[in-house]
Amino acid sequence: MDLFPVYKELHQKGGRILLVVLDGVGGLPLEPGGATELEAARTPNLDRLAEESALGLLTPVHPGLTPGSGPGHLALFGYDPFRFLVGRGALSALGLGADFREEDVALRGNFATLSPEGLVLDRRAGRPSTEENRRVIAKLQEAIPRIEDVEVYFYTESEHRFLVILRGEGLSDRITDTDPQKTGLPPQTAQALDVASRSEHRAASIKTARVVNLLSERIREALKDEPRLNGALFRGASRKPRFPSLKEVFGLEAAAVASYPMYKGLASLVGMEVLPVEGEGDAHAGKLKALKENWSRYDFFYLHFKKTDAKGEDGDFWGKVREIEGFDALLPELLALGPEVLAITGDHSTPALLKAHSWHPVPLLLRAPYLRPDEARRFTEREALRGSLGHLKGVELMPLLLAHALRWQKYGA
Amino acid sequence: MDLFPVYKELHQKGGRILLVVLDGVGGLPLEPGGATELEAARTPNLDRLAEESALGLLTPVHPGLTPGSGPGHLALFGYDPFRFLVGRGALSALGLGADFREEDVALRGNFATLSPEGLVLDRRAGRPSTEENRRVIAKLQEAIPRIEDVEVYFYTESEHRFLVILRGEGLSDRITDTDPQKTGLPPQTAQALDVASRSEHRAASIKTARVVNLLSERIREALKDEPRLNGALFRGASRKPRFPSLKEVFGLEAAAVASYPMYKGLASLVGMEVLPVEGEGDAHAGKLKALKENWSRYDFFYLHFKKTDAKGEDGDFWGKVREIEGFDALLPELLALGPEVLAITGDHSTPALLKAHSWHPVPLLLRAPYLRPDEARRFTEREALRGSLGHLKGVELMPLLLAHALRWQKYGA
Repeated sequence: MDLFPVYKELHQKGGRILLVVLDGVGGLPLEPGGATELEAARTPNLDRLAEESALGLLTPVHPGLTPGSGPGHLALFGYDPFRFLVGRGALSALGLGADFREEDVALRGNFATLSPEGLVLDRRAGRPSTEENRRVIAKLQEAIPRIEDVEVYFYTESEHRFLVILRGEGLSDRITDTDPQKTGLPPQTAQALDVASRSEHRAASIKTARVVNLLSERIREALKDEPRLNGALFRGASRKPRFPSLKEVFGLEAAAVASYPMYKGLASLVGMEVLPVEGEGDAHAGKLKALKENWSRYDFFYLHFKKTDAKGEDGDFWGKVREIEGFDALLPELLALGPEVLAITGDHSTPALLKAHSWHPVPLLLRAPYLRPDEARRFTEREALRGSLGHLKGVELMPLLLAHALRWQKYGA
Repeated sequence: MDLFPVYKELHQKGGRILLVVLDGVGGLPLEPGGATELEAARTPNLDRLAEESALGLLTPVHPGLTPGSGPGHLALFGYDPFRFLVGRGALSALGLGADFREEDVALRGNFATLSPEGLVLDRRAGRPSTEENRRVIAKLQEAIPRIEDVEVYFYTESEHRFLVILRGEGLSDRITDTDPQKTGLPPQTAQALDVASRSEHRAASIKTARVVNLLSERIREALKDEPRLNGALFRGASRKPRFPSLKEVFGLEAAAVASYPMYKGLASLVGMEVLPVEGEGDAHAGKLKALKENWSRYDFFYLHFKKTDAKGEDGDFWGKVREIEGFDALLPELLALGPEVLAITGDHSTPALLKAHSWHPVPLLLRAPYLRPDEARRFTEREALRGSLGHLKGVELMPLLLAHALRWQKYGA
């Protein structure tokens, strides 16, 4: 059920909210009975904070469902990820920080190896290095700057993955994929999907399918001397999503403090102002500076840290522990900013044991003025289970934060 | 998702259910680490009952959402308050116990102060006393008994608030508000909303808008010598909602034992028989008598106590504690009635600390024959968190009560 119409009626002025997302922070013990990454970390500041906070457990999207960064974050921002969809092409564009505009269509590409007869031999072109991908992308960008009146922009993603952005008048995301999803078949021809709709949509859908098919041909031609990367398969044609903003839905002037393009992109999709952050990687000092300099200008800050997830994906348990400890060291300076409501959580779990995102719930810590008594003593998965916030869904977090900031009026008399 | 079609297939005969609602019973400690109202209360009878009961925590409507009495109660009765809406005018009519009929339209009115040019100077007319409100309402009732063929009934609510009930043929709730929501503007003209629909709806919508606009004019004329209460703003035109009854949905012959008009009104909306209760205020003796005399005639009793909420709204922590203790003293007589299933909970929290309804979950106590082992030892927020019923939404309570009364058959073979 769409509750945004209800939410929109509840706004009132209230306290400032800081939402800290430790990407993939939830974990697993390396051995049964062992400690998770959060339990293994020495976190004196988080421990002290947990004493005066309420804890709970958050199922990011749906029980058993392992979310990607898109759904995980949209849920934390209060947007049901089953309703607010970000196409594969659009997600790539956000992740790469590409110049991606309202009128554009983005497509996720895979380099493939085709036989002389044009059948797909390898859908990933033998997993080339990202450097090789870059070399071939440069070649394509030079050979194919446009198709008809449509500008074409190529971006390396990694290994066999790349992104194409089409820019021009009258384009549509309503076309089929060209990836046949198995070997031994030829790449599919992109088909227009809006053939029965109003003439402008129909025309855009037909034009885009034609451009993508011409693009596939031109790529084969440009790469005919490449032994492995000699074809391309396209999926997930998508426009830039247009979502209602946090201002509209929750009445919040919101800012994002993040270093990586994907998270800046997701934040901008929900209307956050993306603040510039100085420094490389997780850039603790740069983020703190961005928060301090803008603290009085926004009602809501989203603060993102990536490395907990990255170390988890690497299977580096102790590296993830160190990232958690690094955040702990930064915590006193975040508290000194004086947010009325502070939440710390993750967008999903990334247990080092699995070297991947997982479906496990994540702990949630909430410090706010009107908390119930709470027995949970640390910011860990096990303690969160005993917390007074109980077990929530990711999409329920924002309502709770707004309530604790006294930003929601009573519903119904 | 609408589960009523499923519920309707599950009825069977079973035990008697007593649902006790301690209005606004959930609370907060006055200071971090302190006791909530429920924790501070001496409740030997509730404590003994809790030992042999199962506990859980109930989120009345939605995480973070602070429910009014309407949504909070509808959820406890099993009705999704986002689907079963009660307009503001209708809720006022229920709250006042006004004669409010199927064909009527109820409007919530505010007395306002208008400038000689007809601009709103004060949307609350300087918050007059309820006595002054009564005086002006009497004047209006005498001056404006009808508009065209529509009878007009005025009711004092409190301070600047009043209720108008329009009674006549062919009226509609599909009109806009006249309250401009800010000062310096003239009152809005009520507009018909159903102008594009079938002719009977269109005509009713146009007629009602016309009547309300004439009413606004006549009120200004009647009050032209009043210095402050010289205009009226209208909101929330509403018909009496028509909800399926507890008999239809759950197969229950249900009765309400409540003293305050709002709760009798809400109970009657879901088809409960409202039993007369002797006595003033929370009328413990009168309620007990009503229960005893009607015990064999119904399957389900809703028993409401208001003072826990009222003391919370007053910010009177110890007053609320005493109301809880007063209920505790009554409890043995309720148990002596021998309900097969007994539930005690609240429709929302009203922490004395906040002097208002809040979003915090409420404890739920369930005594029934087939309970799981349960570690919770008192009817408090903290203990409820450890209870075997877990964390439920308000709207999930009725299914649980029906199950424990063995009133629901198996679903599916």
